[in-house]
Amino acid sequence: MASEFDKTVPRIAVGAFYAQEDCDITLSVTSAKETGHDFIILPITHSNYKRFLFDQVNDNVINKDKKYMEEWRKGSPFLKDDLIIKNNEHVDYLVGKFSDWINLDSSIHRIRTNSEIALNQQLSWVAHLGLTAVLAPTPTNSFVNYARSLNTILGNLTYTHVWMRIPLISEDMSEIEMWERWNKFRTFCEHHSKLSIALELPVDLPDEAYLERWFAEPIKAVILPTKIFLTNVKGYPVLSKKHQAFVKKLMKYKPNFVIFDDMTSKHQSGGFAAYQEYIRHLNRTMPELDQIEQFGSGYQDYLQSPLQPLMDNLESSTYEVFEKDPVKYSLYEKAVYYALLDRIAPESNEITVIIVVGAGRGPLVTRSLQAAEKAKRNVRIYAVEKNPNAFVTLQNMKSEVWNDKVTIVFDDMRKWKSPEKADILVSELLGSFGDNELSPECLDGAQKFLKSDGISIPSSYSTFISPLSSSKLHNEVSAYKDLAHFETPYVVMLQSVAKLAKPQEIWKFEHPNRSIVTDNEGNPINNYHNTRYSRATFNIKNSAILHGIAGYFETVLYKNVIMSILPDTHSEGMFSWFPIFFPLKTPIYLPSDSTIDVHFWRSSNSQKVWYEWCIDTSFGSSVIQNVGGRSSWIGL
Amino acid sequence: MASEFDKTVPRIAVGAFYAQEDCDITLSVTSAKETGHDFIILPITHSNYKRFLFDQVNDNVINKDKKYMEEWRKGSPFLKDDLIIKNNEHVDYLVGKFSDWINLDSSIHRIRTNSEIALNQQLSWVAHLGLTAVLAPTPTNSFVNYARSLNTILGNLTYTHVWMRIPLISEDMSEIEMWERWNKFRTFCEHHSKLSIALELPVDLPDEAYLERWFAEPIKAVILPTKIFLTNVKGYPVLSKKHQAFVKKLMKYKPNFVIFDDMTSKHQSGGFAAYQEYIRHLNRTMPELDQIEQFGSGYQDYLQSPLQPLMDNLESSTYEVFEKDPVKYSLYEKAVYYALLDRIAPESNEITVIIVVGAGRGPLVTRSLQAAEKAKRNVRIYAVEKNPNAFVTLQNMKSEVWNDKVTIVFDDMRKWKSPEKADILVSELLGSFGDNELSPECLDGAQKFLKSDGISIPSSYSTFISPLSSSKLHNEVSAYKDLAHFETPYVVMLQSVAKLAKPQEIWKFEHPNRSIVTDNEGNPINNYHNTRYSRATFNIKNSAILHGIAGYFETVLYKNVIMSILPDTHSEGMFSWFPIFFPLKTPIYLPSDSTIDVHFWRSSNSQKVWYEWCIDTSFGSSVIQNVGGRSSWIGL
Repeated sequence: MASEFDKTVPRIAVGAFYAQEDCDITLSVTSAKETGHDFIILPITHSNYKRFLFDQVNDNVINKDKKYMEEWRKGSPFLKDDLIIKNNEHVDYLVGKFSDWINLDSSIHRIRTNSEIALNQQLSWVAHLGLTAVLAPTPTNSFVNYARSLNTILGNLTYTHVWMRIPLISEDMSEIEMWERWNKFRTFCEHHSKLSIALELPVDLPDEAYLERWFAEPIKAVILPTKIFLTNVKGYPVLSKKHQAFVKKLMKYKPNFVIFDDMTSKHQSGGFAAYQEYIRHLNRTMPELDQIEQFGSGYQDYLQSPLQPLMDNLESSTYEVFEKDPVKYSLYEKAVYYALLDRIAPESNEITVIIVVGAGRGPLVTRSLQAAEKAKRNVRIYAVEKNPNAFVTLQNMKSEVWNDKVTIVFDDMRKWKSPEKADILVSELLGSFGDNELSPECLDGAQKFLKSDGISIPSSYSTFISPLSSSKLHNEVSAYKDLAHFETPYVVMLQSVAKLAKPQEIWKFEHPNRSIVTDNEGNPINNYHNTRYSRATFNIKNSAILHGIAGYFETVLYKNVIMSILPDTHSEGMFSWFPIFFPLKTPIYLPSDSTIDVHFWRSSNSQKVWYEWCIDTSFGSSVIQNVGGRSSWIGL
Repeated sequence: MASEFDKTVPRIAVGAFYAQEDCDITLSVTSAKETGHDFIILPITHSNYKRFLFDQVNDNVINKDKKYMEEWRKGSPFLKDDLIIKNNEHVDYLVGKFSDWINLDSSIHRIRTNSEIALNQQLSWVAHLGLTAVLAPTPTNSFVNYARSLNTILGNLTYTHVWMRIPLISEDMSEIEMWERWNKFRTFCEHHSKLSIALELPVDLPDEAYLERWFAEPIKAVILPTKIFLTNVKGYPVLSKKHQAFVKKLMKYKPNFVIFDDMTSKHQSGGFAAYQEYIRHLNRTMPELDQIEQFGSGYQDYLQSPLQPLMDNLESSTYEVFEKDPVKYSLYEKAVYYALLDRIAPESNEITVIIVVGAGRGPLVTRSLQAAEKAKRNVRIYAVEKNPNAFVTLQNMKSEVWNDKVTIVFDDMRKWKSPEKADILVSELLGSFGDNELSPECLDGAQKFLKSDGISIPSSYSTFISPLSSSKLHNEVSAYKDLAHFETPYVVMLQSVAKLAKPQEIWKFEHPNRSIVTDNEGNPINNYHNTRYSRATFNIKNSAILHGIAGYFETVLYKNVIMSILPDTHSEGMFSWFPIFFPLKTPIYLPSDSTIDVHFWRSSNSQKVWYEWCIDTSFGSSVIQNVGGRSSWIGL
């Protein structure tokens, strides 16, 4: 989970984009390079290629023009002089742009047909040249045939991406409607991974709440028209505070920025270079990454399978990473400290027995010893670990550091027969969803060697869920092209995500659990007491696509010592857990002001534990996912 | 497509069902047999099995009962005396019934858990015995955990079906709400094919419009409580006219009927046997099947791939079937007759040249000769056929029947060079969707040997679509478990279907098409003139699930001679075409009074023709299906 520590701000790409439909490629490229741009967006053909729209031809008369049109339709190569982007030269410096006159939803069959042929022809040309991207026009009021035409060719692309120009607010509609339009377009196109957004910012930005949804979308470029820039006292272009904040937030996603010269420029100083210089300046002055961002750098939106520490033995490097968390073990030490203070009177010489179950390479043992020292209490510690490799480290620690105060035991905590009972049972068995690494089942087994009035650290943990939108994560899961991956939860550092509502608690586990009925060995007869079923109701303010459910936990280690990975109460600086993500097989469209019920189950049989989940709304429901744990489960 | 002619009314199954939870199996079976029933629904366990709900146990106290409960939960066999259905005896005569006290959505974890265990136990017992079906309780207000529990075990069933008891109207809700509840339940269960409906009829039936939707549902049983029967003058039970009509309509789907003795019986005559006798009487007095029903018998809801007559040669038996249509060829004869009358003055000796393209085994030739005789016109006929096998029959027909009036030609109509031009070009190239067997492309090629003022029969054809609901058809397509089958149109005799709106025309082809630009050979330069794109808007009155689109055609053979497979204007007695069905990958829930746009494309390249389709609504959209013809197409 760790990554290289990297404080240097990555260089961003800033490109140039002019309003003209005609230009000389050599001059344009030279000029863009001279003004410090990293790429340029250029039309693929000259504007006179529009003659192939044949918008003057009469359908009912057979004439020379019509024959010429039909021959062209059959498939003709471009004439050299029709092309602006003529050959491979500058190919790494160019982004293509479809002709503006392409009109795929004309009511006239001829114009629609010729537009589709021109679209195919232009895209296949830039794909042939190997351009990274091509800018596609904004969907207008009718766009279903545009969607079909583009969708057909998306499937043929291997290298080239399509950036669809999406104004955040267009003149004829509100920001929500623009999002709805984009959302329909990509739904028609099956969330195609080659289709992303070139988001064009307006002069007036809408409210934060409306901006949030765009972070769930695949934004590959941000278009900044020169007219949105203000002029500072020296005559240079600058952005308003609100624009700055939004642009800086977008910078986290590392899109390509595009300075669009809309010919309205009124900034006297710095020339066209000044815009890109300003954007690079904003990037350099981004606030430094916080500890979690540093730790997670490179892990944003990366899907990881949760650990299965009961079935698999963790690797040393995994322990290494988690032991580095600066916050988690301090909280544990604090919890043990307060528990020791509560347990034994200050002047007593009595020895407190601490059993650390799942001791790993020993960090909780070390912290327990430190807590005892601070609390001035005598302790005897047992460290129980089932992983033979970690046990080697424990042996070293005992002989070199801990000595007699610690007894190390190689056994499964559910089976070990302890020589004496514990006052305090310490464990770190929580996963991102709280109970998803089987802490409840492990502690059920371990609590038989806890005194009847003994303390478990943690003493309880709660699981929280919230609905989220993220076409990025949906696409990541889709890429596997099977059902099983849609029925599997993932540990993921959420970035390209819109959170649609505040998290809600769905269930809780408390330890020790004295109501369990046990067999003669002290083990539970079955695992039904650890099954859970809960429903949470969320109100969704703005229309959105629901792609899945985020999961978090909060734990009471001991009394006031609380550890949390919930966004609002996250233990500061703690990086051991990313949230968990439960995908939805079929994304659900949520209208504004809608209400959804999320149902969650923790199920179990004698071999495994698994989750099932589904969505219920008044406007449709999902299937129940992961029925009977068919796709994902945690082995007991 | 043909089937054995069968006028005998199939015997229906009528079973008995008593309200009691306890009974003796031998007495019950004997009594049900004596009263003439074909099966009996019996509870699986006696009512005292309810003790395993442990609804009196206190969760917070460990007592003997609780230990007993946990041991039971771990998995215990039934005690012999707990079971009503004890063994394999009578197994073919029995339908099981889950215990009424099973409460899967209790807010109490213990009751929920024990209910789930009991449900599993009862179902696995009847599945073990090999019962055909088991009756499951009606979903109550909360039913999501019921859905999950049942869904989990549906996957394990191989032979046994679950009939879910669904009252058409329940006391606490309207009929629509009951449908919504059922719809959610089966959506949660992924439209599982082992889950079907036992529809229970009420005393008062709602309007026809509300009843229609149930025909789209998988109704495996119809429960008739004795209280819904009226008493005739002789004291015997009978149904109201409205009930009779609905029951007779249901009989077409051949469900199992169940007489439910609700203990309110007030009919003096005939005893319990009188109800089943009455139902059998209704079945015997069903109106005889009309010609189309007779022809389609056995083909209801059976998915067939459309013919590809251009790529494949039809078999003799296929010709045989279609030539038997009593209506189609009469209409063709009439069309040729009127065309001949219009073409030539009565007393003229001029010869009219008729070219039949795609002559098959010759029925259109024979009919054209008959038309000429009736019209008293001289004709010279060419019969062009590319299928070498059919051409053998044409040779026989020429030598034995037609003689000199007919010239037979073995060639593809798109390539043949005719010795003279035709006055009338006759073809039968239409598929269920009109143009889906490539009539437009074939006639484009053939029209070069039609005189400039010549007549094409058919002169035009239009394609119609309408939205439909059918969980049956959805399940049939799902069963293939791949995307391609969801992107393929099927020819199907629609039965288990609710039509959600009247069909609308989406496009039309006219022949001859004089605006085509041709090459030197007289063939079209490309096929873009035969592409189509259209949108139809439908208003949906009652909430429903949209499973796909039905397609139909109507053709003008000549002037007033019209042939149609549209439900409202269907050419009476014509059986050559069933409708076509375009499935939707993901069914869409349509709220009451909603509006949907259906987009349809007929696309083409130089090798093939294909359809694409999608749904657009204000509450969400579908993907565009069959992009680029990836799953289904017709070869040119």
